[in-house]
Amino acid sequence: MQTVDASQVSTAEIKELTARPRVDFSSVLGLVEPIVEEVRQRGDEAVREFTKKFDRADTDAVCVPLQDMPAPQLEPDVSQAFDVAFNNISAFHKGQQGDILEVETMPGVRCRRITRPVGAVGLYVPGGTAILPSSALMLAVPAGIAGCSTIVMATPPRPDGSISPEVLYCARKAGVTHILLAGGAQAVAAMAWGTATCPKVDKILGPGNQYVTAAKMLLQNSEAMISIDMPAGPSEVMVIADAEAPHAHIAADLLSQAEHGPDSQVVLVALPGCDVDGIQAEVQRQTEQLPRGNTVMQALSHSAVVLARSRQEAASISNLYAPEHLIVNTADAEDWLPLLQNAGSIFLGRWTPESVGDYASGTNHVLPTYGYARMYSGVSLDSFQKKITVQCLTQEGLQNVGPAVAKMAAVEGLDAHRRAVTLRLGIDKS
Amino acid sequence: MQTVDASQVSTAEIKELTARPRVDFSSVLGLVEPIVEEVRQRGDEAVREFTKKFDRADTDAVCVPLQDMPAPQLEPDVSQAFDVAFNNISAFHKGQQGDILEVETMPGVRCRRITRPVGAVGLYVPGGTAILPSSALMLAVPAGIAGCSTIVMATPPRPDGSISPEVLYCARKAGVTHILLAGGAQAVAAMAWGTATCPKVDKILGPGNQYVTAAKMLLQNSEAMISIDMPAGPSEVMVIADAEAPHAHIAADLLSQAEHGPDSQVVLVALPGCDVDGIQAEVQRQTEQLPRGNTVMQALSHSAVVLARSRQEAASISNLYAPEHLIVNTADAEDWLPLLQNAGSIFLGRWTPESVGDYASGTNHVLPTYGYARMYSGVSLDSFQKKITVQCLTQEGLQNVGPAVAKMAAVEGLDAHRRAVTLRLGIDKS
Repeated sequence: MQTVDASQVSTAEIKELTARPRVDFSSVLGLVEPIVEEVRQRGDEAVREFTKKFDRADTDAVCVPLQDMPAPQLEPDVSQAFDVAFNNISAFHKGQQGDILEVETMPGVRCRRITRPVGAVGLYVPGGTAILPSSALMLAVPAGIAGCSTIVMATPPRPDGSISPEVLYCARKAGVTHILLAGGAQAVAAMAWGTATCPKVDKILGPGNQYVTAAKMLLQNSEAMISIDMPAGPSEVMVIADAEAPHAHIAADLLSQAEHGPDSQVVLVALPGCDVDGIQAEVQRQTEQLPRGNTVMQALSHSAVVLARSRQEAASISNLYAPEHLIVNTADAEDWLPLLQNAGSIFLGRWTPESVGDYASGTNHVLPTYGYARMYSGVSLDSFQKKITVQCLTQEGLQNVGPAVAKMAAVEGLDAHRRAVTLRLGIDKS
Repeated sequence: MQTVDASQVSTAEIKELTARPRVDFSSVLGLVEPIVEEVRQRGDEAVREFTKKFDRADTDAVCVPLQDMPAPQLEPDVSQAFDVAFNNISAFHKGQQGDILEVETMPGVRCRRITRPVGAVGLYVPGGTAILPSSALMLAVPAGIAGCSTIVMATPPRPDGSISPEVLYCARKAGVTHILLAGGAQAVAAMAWGTATCPKVDKILGPGNQYVTAAKMLLQNSEAMISIDMPAGPSEVMVIADAEAPHAHIAADLLSQAEHGPDSQVVLVALPGCDVDGIQAEVQRQTEQLPRGNTVMQALSHSAVVLARSRQEAASISNLYAPEHLIVNTADAEDWLPLLQNAGSIFLGRWTPESVGDYASGTNHVLPTYGYARMYSGVSLDSFQKKITVQCLTQEGLQNVGPAVAKMAAVEGLDAHRRAVTLRLGIDKS
């Protein structure tokens, strides 16, 4: 990892050093567009062909109601681990249920905001080399709490046409209604357009590779009329460490991000007194013990260490970078919170590795990457709901607010708007 | 307006009858793309040229700090009307400020959610033939409450290069920092890329014509890295009326939507006993008195009346249509709320015309159109904020949740994730 001293370089140089690996979406969009179009036109048949081609899996079934699938068998210690995660994620996301907002803005003018679930949602759970039952939980738990009536979970099948029993276990527990045995752009397209077996959904959420992301971006601008959670990029972590932060823990946190993929990025912000050489040596040592050592080394090759002179400077660097995950491994971690503006999720103190949030603390691990934490939030209960405003006026209420409405409508030259008020108030007899 | 009896037709036929006027976005995107690219490359100079071409206005200044603009002079009755709206919109949007969410999911595992403003936002306020100071309020008030540090308001200048004093009055009152004297795709591009005089923003919000919407859609998928509020289409209203709903009020509400533009759509859902012929005659009579009669007649030509047999059937039709504005003009309006799933904003009872929400009840008038109310919410305080999750574990907390995390990481084959936990707990000495 390359080291720079924040006192010696400009903000622009720090920005460049910490720039994410570039994704060329225009070429990916070009590859994805014909797949999306094939699925639109030929439905399940096209999905089946792409699954054979890309996942080397022969599947008769494309999308199956979950109730028709056999219950998965897991070792008790495995199912218990997922149960802990389920309970914590449920508790934190249930805490996000808002009361009805109600404000009487003037006497007789009652304004409310109510929530309703998005009717049908599509959840993308990546597969491929790794299995990711944790993503199944992170997406399906809030969808279930929100009360979405149709919950389709897409995940690429294994070569024998099955999906991982852990993913199935999490899907059942959280209330998924359909499993779409497909991955990539073809899965996103099947959920967006609907097929003979796959329900058409209103919103598609979940992380994925560049083809999945490109398909989501393409389809949110299309006649399919779907929304998406956010554009997803490679995963990333920033670790802020003080002089006393244990080297082994910092190294393990950096590496737990780096092992996600060769395009992952990790940034260490070292406060005064932090032994950067010692940490680098520890990273080296632990890397040699990891099964995914090659992936890690590629990720580390475009990662960086930044030396910061103060808490304020470190926080500024973090806000500039807008990390998906931010670990503050300092003695005064809690005091940093007011300074932090842009991050997907924040991990405070000595005992809070990123992996607790990835799996089971209760927070969601579907988070904005690539600097999108500047304007996007991670997935939450809100992601599965709409908020609808409601107003109800009494005669007195309309008498109170009506004159202002009529005047503003007149200023804007909208006469029928004005008359909808004045006719009711008996001011306008025409 | 064409009339159909819901008992005589299929759901698909109702859906077709109430289909929105089609917008061909692919051709619009083709027109908008070179404009966006020109602004990216040539900045203010390109914006100035497009403003001259499309708005026939010569402007030296492109983007001006608000503090440098002279205070607008309004008639007292006009400024007072906008003050009423400002106060009500502020009250309702301040009510949306959430407390910090905090849940201890297990002993020692403390999860929180905090909010932070989006740093820089761009607000699009349409201009052209009409002036829309109400949109200025609807966008700038919540941006100010959220605490966004840079608030750019774009609005097309008049031929003399000025903007309407009412828009400027609202912008000042709400805390806008910059006025971008431009409209259309060029304004959206200037805010997304930034220019010499216009700050680059993180998010662009506000209604606009098809060029504005296309530019927003294009840029949200681009390297400009912006998010948008929602795709905007022509405005629409659905009115549900019972037998006693006054004809003149129903007609005025339908017409206040129809006067927005020739592509607006209005749908009347008539409950048993509702005198549809009487309402149609009243629509005809009022239309003849409106200055925008031609616009209204074009809008009415693709509008519809649907006869419903029951409250349940009418609610189903409304949920299928997912109207931007839904007026429930019935004696039992409050009882409808539990049945309503998809709408931008709902107006209950005899005394609640849509125009109160358009201007001054307090709710936001930037709402999802075109059926997007199925999955999008209208603009609210949330639109100007991110929510960041925070977790802080004690040693006990990590002891409680750590074993589940380590097990799940092992299932997913992510060894460094596992070790970030086990090294801290002293289980793993490697």
